[in-house]
Amino acid sequence: MNMTIDKQLKTSDFLAIEHILRAAKVFSEDEINVAVELAQDTLSGKDKYDFIFIRNVDQQLLGYTCFGKTPLTAKTYDLYWLAVNPPYQKNGIANRLLAETLKTIAAAGGAHLYAETSSMTQYAAAHSFYEKMGFMLAATFRDFYKDGDDKRVYYKSVK
Amino acid sequence: MNMTIDKQLKTSDFLAIEHILRAAKVFSEDEINVAVELAQDTLSGKDKYDFIFIRNVDQQLLGYTCFGKTPLTAKTYDLYWLAVNPPYQKNGIANRLLAETLKTIAAAGGAHLYAETSSMTQYAAAHSFYEKMGFMLAATFRDFYKDGDDKRVYYKSVK
Repeated sequence: MNMTIDKQLKTSDFLAIEHILRAAKVFSEDEINVAVELAQDTLSGKDKYDFIFIRNVDQQLLGYTCFGKTPLTAKTYDLYWLAVNPPYQKNGIANRLLAETLKTIAAAGGAHLYAETSSMTQYAAAHSFYEKMGFMLAATFRDFYKDGDDKRVYYKSVK
Repeated sequence: MNMTIDKQLKTSDFLAIEHILRAAKVFSEDEINVAVELAQDTLSGKDKYDFIFIRNVDQQLLGYTCFGKTPLTAKTYDLYWLAVNPPYQKNGIANRLLAETLKTIAAAGGAHLYAETSSMTQYAAAHSFYEKMGFMLAATFRDFYKDGDDKRVYYKSVK
């Protein structure tokens, strides 16, 4: 598949991000709103997050990552979102997004990457992905999101 | 000592918070800026954090806490700041601030409280305080803030 990669957030991405996350069928409306807000706040200048987009030849969004330097740290980054439009999954898009994210962080002098996720079974694909990509489970916070729904913190050293 | 407790953030608190944190001699300028921003953002309506203040009869700020509901969680809170003006320490002000914070969180239906701090020795008083007050060390993230400076996450169940 012909794909292009870019870091240029556009207003049209708000709807595309919402579409991808809703199509994933694992995120709540609150989570989707937060994800779109990160994009809106970045474009309005209220806050600053980094984005990487993979698009097809028609400029349709196939997947994206949103990440950023963790405040008050020297070399630590948070991976806020990594999502691939469901019909385009299994094309190596997630791997390529993560590889590009790690390259960008390394180029900026980053050394540590954290990704937080829920322990719930609907996030099992995310857990497998992180583990396959060399992340380690760094911490678990019991009942963090709600009763029976722990927060898992995955960690990857950035070389 | 005659003290009053209130939850009413005022513009004059910006400078008082800055003064207390600078006098504590453990926080960086970046950390102090973030602490003052939490107050500014709350008063401007940009964001919403909870504050509890202890003042003397002259309305001078002796200590304060800043905390808030963790986004996307049902019953989890973060304790962002708990600080006492150094000349007024050893008067039980920190204990009273924490007790009032826990009471406020419990009344709002909260069940979990997390406090993040650095592992550096200048924060030893904070570590002792949390441990004495029944917090548990829930996680440590190595070199999180900078090389040799871990993030410690303390946890207390809110009853």
